[in-house]
Amino acid sequence: MKALGESVTRRVAIAGASGYTGVELLRFLVQHPAVRVVALTAETHANRPISQVFPNLRGFVELTCVPLDAAALAREAEFVFLALPHKASMTVGAELVERGVRVLDLSADFRLKDPAAYPRWYGFEHTAPALLSTAVYGLPELHREAIAAARLVAVPGCYPTSTILGLCPLLARGLVDVETIVVDSISGVSGAGRKPELPTHYSEVNESLKAYGVAKHRHTPEIEQELSGVAGRPVMVTFTPHLAPLTRGILTTITARMSRPQTTGDLLTVYREFYRERPFVRVLEEGCLPETKHVLHSNLCDIGLVSDARTGRVVVVSAIDNLAKGASGQAVQCFNLMAGLDERAGLWIPGLFP
Amino acid sequence: MKALGESVTRRVAIAGASGYTGVELLRFLVQHPAVRVVALTAETHANRPISQVFPNLRGFVELTCVPLDAAALAREAEFVFLALPHKASMTVGAELVERGVRVLDLSADFRLKDPAAYPRWYGFEHTAPALLSTAVYGLPELHREAIAAARLVAVPGCYPTSTILGLCPLLARGLVDVETIVVDSISGVSGAGRKPELPTHYSEVNESLKAYGVAKHRHTPEIEQELSGVAGRPVMVTFTPHLAPLTRGILTTITARMSRPQTTGDLLTVYREFYRERPFVRVLEEGCLPETKHVLHSNLCDIGLVSDARTGRVVVVSAIDNLAKGASGQAVQCFNLMAGLDERAGLWIPGLFP
Amino acid sequence: MKALGESVTRRVAIAGASGYTGVELLRFLVQHPAVRVVALTAETHANRPISQVFPNLRGFVELTCVPLDAAALAREAEFVFLALPHKASMTVGAELVERGVRVLDLSADFRLKDPAAYPRWYGFEHTAPALLSTAVYGLPELHREAIAAARLVAVPGCYPTSTILGLCPLLARGLVDVETIVVDSISGVSGAGRKPELPTHYSEVNESLKAYGVAKHRHTPEIEQELSGVAGRPVMVTFTPHLAPLTRGILTTITARMSRPQTTGDLLTVYREFYRERPFVRVLEEGCLPETKHVLHSNLCDIGLVSDARTGRVVVVSAIDNLAKGASGQAVQCFNLMAGLDERAGLWIPGLFP
Amino acid sequence: MKALGESVTRRVAIAGASGYTGVELLRFLVQHPAVRVVALTAETHANRPISQVFPNLRGFVELTCVPLDAAALAREAEFVFLALPHKASMTVGAELVERGVRVLDLSADFRLKDPAAYPRWYGFEHTAPALLSTAVYGLPELHREAIAAARLVAVPGCYPTSTILGLCPLLARGLVDVETIVVDSISGVSGAGRKPELPTHYSEVNESLKAYGVAKHRHTPEIEQELSGVAGRPVMVTFTPHLAPLTRGILTTITARMSRPQTTGDLLTVYREFYRERPFVRVLEEGCLPETKHVLHSNLCDIGLVSDARTGRVVVVSAIDNLAKGASGQAVQCFNLMAGLDERAGLWIPGLFP
Repeated sequence: MKALGESVTRRVAIAGASGYTGVELLRFLVQHPAVRVVALTAETHANRPISQVFPNLRGFVELTCVPLDAAALAREAEFVFLALPHKASMTVGAELVERGVRVLDLSADFRLKDPAAYPRWYGFEHTAPALLSTAVYGLPELHREAIAAARLVAVPGCYPTSTILGLCPLLARGLVDVETIVVDSISGVSGAGRKPELPTHYSEVNESLKAYGVAKHRHTPEIEQELSGVAGRPVMVTFTPHLAPLTRGILTTITARMSRPQTTGDLLTVYREFYRERPFVRVLEEGCLPETKHVLHSNLCDIGLVSDARTGRVVVVSAIDNLAKGASGQAVQCFNLMAGLDERAGLWIPGLFP
Repeated sequence: MKALGESVTRRVAIAGASGYTGVELLRFLVQHPAVRVVALTAETHANRPISQVFPNLRGFVELTCVPLDAAALAREAEFVFLALPHKASMTVGAELVERGVRVLDLSADFRLKDPAAYPRWYGFEHTAPALLSTAVYGLPELHREAIAAARLVAVPGCYPTSTILGLCPLLARGLVDVETIVVDSISGVSGAGRKPELPTHYSEVNESLKAYGVAKHRHTPEIEQELSGVAGRPVMVTFTPHLAPLTRGILTTITARMSRPQTTGDLLTVYREFYRERPFVRVLEEGCLPETKHVLHSNLCDIGLVSDARTGRVVVVSAIDNLAKGASGQAVQCFNLMAGLDERAGLWIPGLFP
Repeated sequence: MKALGESVTRRVAIAGASGYTGVELLRFLVQHPAVRVVALTAETHANRPISQVFPNLRGFVELTCVPLDAAALAREAEFVFLALPHKASMTVGAELVERGVRVLDLSADFRLKDPAAYPRWYGFEHTAPALLSTAVYGLPELHREAIAAARLVAVPGCYPTSTILGLCPLLARGLVDVETIVVDSISGVSGAGRKPELPTHYSEVNESLKAYGVAKHRHTPEIEQELSGVAGRPVMVTFTPHLAPLTRGILTTITARMSRPQTTGDLLTVYREFYRERPFVRVLEEGCLPETKHVLHSNLCDIGLVSDARTGRVVVVSAIDNLAKGASGQAVQCFNLMAGLDERAGLWIPGLFP
Repeated sequence: MKALGESVTRRVAIAGASGYTGVELLRFLVQHPAVRVVALTAETHANRPISQVFPNLRGFVELTCVPLDAAALAREAEFVFLALPHKASMTVGAELVERGVRVLDLSADFRLKDPAAYPRWYGFEHTAPALLSTAVYGLPELHREAIAAARLVAVPGCYPTSTILGLCPLLARGLVDVETIVVDSISGVSGAGRKPELPTHYSEVNESLKAYGVAKHRHTPEIEQELSGVAGRPVMVTFTPHLAPLTRGILTTITARMSRPQTTGDLLTVYREFYRERPFVRVLEEGCLPETKHVLHSNLCDIGLVSDARTGRVVVVSAIDNLAKGASGQAVQCFNLMAGLDERAGLWIPGLFP
C-alpha cells in the first residue's frame, strides 16, 4: 500500500525501538514513501517481534527486535535513529558515526555544546566531547542547512522545541527584555517514557496536576543555549514544567516584558515572517490561541500570542505533540533534510481531532 | 506532498462536514491519493472556512462551508458522503441518487431493509422506502461486491460494526446457540457527536461509567438484520451500550453458549479463515485480547476470543475506533470499493499508540 | 474536630496501610466518631510517617508505619484491618484471631468456603482451612448478624460486591433462569492496586478499553459461592471484567433470562423490598440507571434495571466505588456491625459529584 | 447519623442550588453538625427534588427546588448562600441583606471594592455600589475577623484563592519585586460550570491543553486588589489561566524575582509563620511540591516553593480543589466564622486519594 513518491529508498534502523519514541518513529516510518526499516534493537525485548511489543503495529511491521550491535547496524542501515536512554547514546552514537552511519539521536547526549553542562545538569561526564561541536541541534526551523549536511543530529527535547519555537522571533528581533522570560510548560504523561514507576502510575497521575523539576529541569540548558544563539547574547530563563492527565501534548506559555510597546497584530506579523518557509509552524490569527488537540499526532507546532498593554508584557503560547514534533516526528523531519527529501515526506498529516 | 498511487482523481463532497464524522472524513480524504474534496456543506457554519471550524485542518483544507444544495453538489461531485443527522439524509440521499451521484450515507436512514422498523425504532416514517431495498449495507467484510456496484451505501453504525464483525464467523458456521447472545459494548464519548448537551458535558462524563438505551438502542435492529442474514434465520440479541470516559474507541464483548464444545484455538482458526481476505480485521493469537488503544485512529478491527469449557460459553471481544472503522474510515473503505480502488487506499495506517 | 457521637472509642490498626485500600480505610477512620487508629504497618515504607506516604493525610494522621508484628498489633488493637496482598493475610489473620483480635481481611484469603478453590483459582494451598468455615463473608446486606458476631470477616472483592448485590433479589425470588446469567463489569484502574506495572502505566491505560481475565478471573468462585447460597442451588456465571480509563468506580451489567414475564416496575418492587433495611443500597426509580459518579467516594451501591419483553431478558446495572463499597468502606461497615455501632457510622457520606 | 457537636442549629438556604457550587455546598452542609438546610432555589429545575437534579444526593436531601423569592428566603433562613451567575447576585444579595439575612455570595458581584472595575472587567454597571464597601472579601486566611462580623461576604474566585494564598507571605514581607510577578494557573473543567457548551464538551477538552482569557481574565482585578492590600502598594500581575482535562483542581505557579537572595528553607519558614493559625493551609517541607490530587474534595490549600539562586527568582506552587477551597468549601469556612463556630466544622476532611 505504500505510495511511492520517491524513487530511492533509504535503509534506516532504530536503536531502542521498544519505548514510546520508538513506536512513534515506526508509526511515521512505515508510512514514509522513501524509507525501508531494516532493523530494530531492544534489549529487554530482544528476539520478540515488534508487533508483540506494540500490537498496534500488527500487520505493518514484521521485524523482530535484536540486541544492539553497532557494527551490525552499520552494515545494514544508512541512517540510525537512537531512541535510547540518556547516556546510552553517547557511546553508540560515537561508534556509529565513526563507522560512517548518519545518526539521529533522540536523547540529550549530543544536544549541549558545552561539555561541562553534562556533569552539572545530567550528572555524568561526557565521553565524546569532540562530537559535541560537530553534532547539529536538530531543530529544522533554526538549523535547516546544517542538519541537511550533518552526520550526527541531536534531536531536541519536547519542552525545548515548544519553548524555542515560541520565543525565537521575539529574541531574533530584540522585542523582549531577555532578563524577564518566564516559561511554564504543561506536558502529557507519555513524555516520561514507558517504564512503569509510581509517578506515572495511572491512579496517581489521573485527575491531578503538579509542577516538578522546578529550577533544575534538564531541558533548561538546552533552551538557554539555543535562545542565546538566536538573541546573540546570554539568555537565562525560569523554566517550570508541569504534568497534566493526558497522554500526549505540550502547551508552553511564555511571558516576557516587551522592550517597547507592540500590538498583538504587529507581533503576529513578525512571527509570520519568521516562520514563512517553515511548513510545520502555524502562526494563528489574532484572537486565537493554540490547543494541543489541534496538533495531536501531527508534526505541527501552533503558536498564538497576546500583547498586554496594561502590564507591558507579551504572552506567547505554543502547542506541540510531545512524541511527534517533540521527538519522533522532528527526528523524521531532520532525516528528510539529511536524505535530501522534502521536509514533509511522511509527515504531512493534520492534527487528529477529536 | 500528496503521494499519487492512482492516476484518476475522484471528486468527492461531504454534506454535514462540521461534525466529528465530517472532520474524520477530511482527515482521511486529505491524505487519500485518489481524491479531491470539492465541496463541504454545513448549515450552522455556512460561509466559514472549515479550518476555522476545525483548526487542526489549518493548512490542509482551504474549502469554505456552504449550505446544502443537492443540485450544486451533484454538479461538482461524483461521490457525496452524507454526515448528516438521522432523518436529514433520507431526502438529500434520495435526491442525490436521482441526480446520478453515488452516495455514502453515514446516518441510519438507509440501513434497515424493513420500512416498518423506522417508526418503531427511530420514531419517523421513511419517505423513500423504495431506496431501502437498493441501498447496500456498507460493511465491506460482508458485502464487498454489492458495495462496489452500489449507488447508495448505508455505512453501518459504530456498535453494529464491532458487534457484527465479532459474531459473524460463529453464526456463519452455526457454532453458537442464537437464542443466547448477549452483547455489552463500551463506547468513548465522541460517538455522541459534537452537539453540547449535559450527558456529554466534560464534568458529567469524566470519571464515570454508565449503561444507557437498555433494551431500546437504535443500533439493535441493524445488528439483528445483518446477523440474521449471516445465520440464515432470525437472530435476536440483548444489546447494552455503555459510556466510558475516553474520546474514541468501542470495545464489544459478546457472550453466547456454544452449540458444541470448541477450543479457543479451533474457534480462532474459524475466524482467521473467515477474515482471510479482509485486511482491516486482525484476528489475535490465542491468549491475546484486543485493546481499543491498539486500533486508535485506524480503520482496523481487532478480535480475540476465549472458549470457556467450564460454562460452555464463548466470549468474543472486538475493538474498533468508533469514528474510523465505526464511521468515517469505513465510509472511505466503501468509497474505495465503489471507485474501483484498493480497499486500503488512504486508510492503511496502524493504530496510533500510545 | 472529631464529632463524638459514641462514648466508647475502639482501638483499630491497619496492616498494609500503604496501598490504596489502606489510605481509603484511613480516610474513613480518621473521620469515624468511635475509632482511634493506633497502629499502621507497611513493609516497604517502614519507619516513614504515613503522611509522607500519602500527603493527602498531612495534618490528619500522625502515625509512622512499622513492620508487621502480629503480637504487637494484638497488644495495641481490638480490631485489625488486613489490607495485605493475597496469601499474606492467611498467616497473619490466623495468628491475630488466635490472639483474640477481631480481624477484617480485605484480601481473598478467607472468602472461599471450599479450601480446594484456592489451588484452583489462586494457585496456592490454604494453610488455615479450619478458619474458612468460621470466617464470615463480609457483605452486610446478606450476612449482617453473622458479621456482628464474627471474629474474622472476609471482606468481599469489588466485582463480587456489585455483582452479588445486583443479582440477589432475582435469585432469592427465583425470577431468572440460573443457567443464563452473563455478567460484564467495568472497573476503574485503582482496583489494580498501587504497584507500578505496565498494564496500569498511565499512557497504556488512558484512552483505552479492554477485557481481561476472561473465563478465569479470581472473583468468579466468590460470586458463585454467594449466589448459590442465595439461590439455594448451584449457580454458575460467565463473568468478564473490563478496564476503563478512570480511577474509581465499578459498573456491573447483568443479563439473564426471566423465568416468567415481569415488568420493570414489578422487579423494582422486589428489589426495594429486598433492600428495605439496607441503607447503602439505593434502588433507583423506573427509567433511571446508575452512574458510578453518583456513588463516587461513598459507600453506596446504586441499582437500576430494565425488563425487556422483546427478548424475555432482564438487564440489571449496579454501580459502586471499588475502593469504598468495593473494599474499605465495606470493611468499615462490617466493623461498625462487629463493634455494635450504627452501620452508617463514619460512612454516611453522599457521592461526591462532580 | 449526623453527629452533633454543636447545640444550636443554623437555618441556611442556597439560591442557585442546581450548579456545581450548589451541589458542592450541599455535600458539605448535609454533613455539617450545626446546619439545617431549609430551602433550595433553582429556576430551570423549579419544583424538582434536588435528588433528581443530583442523584448523588438521593437519601441525603429531601428538599425540592423552588423559584428564587428573596422575601421567602428571608423568612426561612438566617444565612443564604448565593450560587448564582454573575450579575444575578447583585440584586438578590442587596435585597437579602436589607431584610436582615446574612449573605455568602459565591459570584464576583461583591468582590471588587472599586465600582468602576465592574464595567471594565465584567461589562456591567454595579447597581448596589454602596454594598461594595461593606462587603467583606471572604478569604479567611486574610480577613478572619471581618468575615466573622460581616453581613455580606464575597467569597473569592477559585484562581484568586490559590494565587493570593501562594503570594501573600512574600508580599507581606517585601521579599519579591512586585513588578515581576507572573502567575500561570491550570484548572480542571468544573470551574466552567454546568452549562453545556462546546468548549466544555467532553470530546473537545479531553486530551487537550489550552490557555484562555489571556490578559483579560476577570479574576485579575480581584487578585490585584487583595495583593495590593497585603503589599501596601499597587501590585499588577500577568495572570494566565489554562484548562486541562480533569474535573477538579487548580494548580497555580507563581514566579517572581526575589528582592534579595533567600534560600528555600528561609522562605518556607516565612510561610509557616504566616499561616501558623490557618488550619487549611499546609506549607510543605523543602523538596516537596503540591499535587492537586492531595487536596481533592478537601478545603485544603497546599503550598510549596523553590528559591532559584541561578536566576534570582522564587517559584511558588499552590494547589486547591476549585469547587471546595476555591468556592463552596471556602463559603462554608466563612459561614463557620460568621456563625461563631470552629472554622473547621463540617470541613475537616483530608484530600481523597487516589
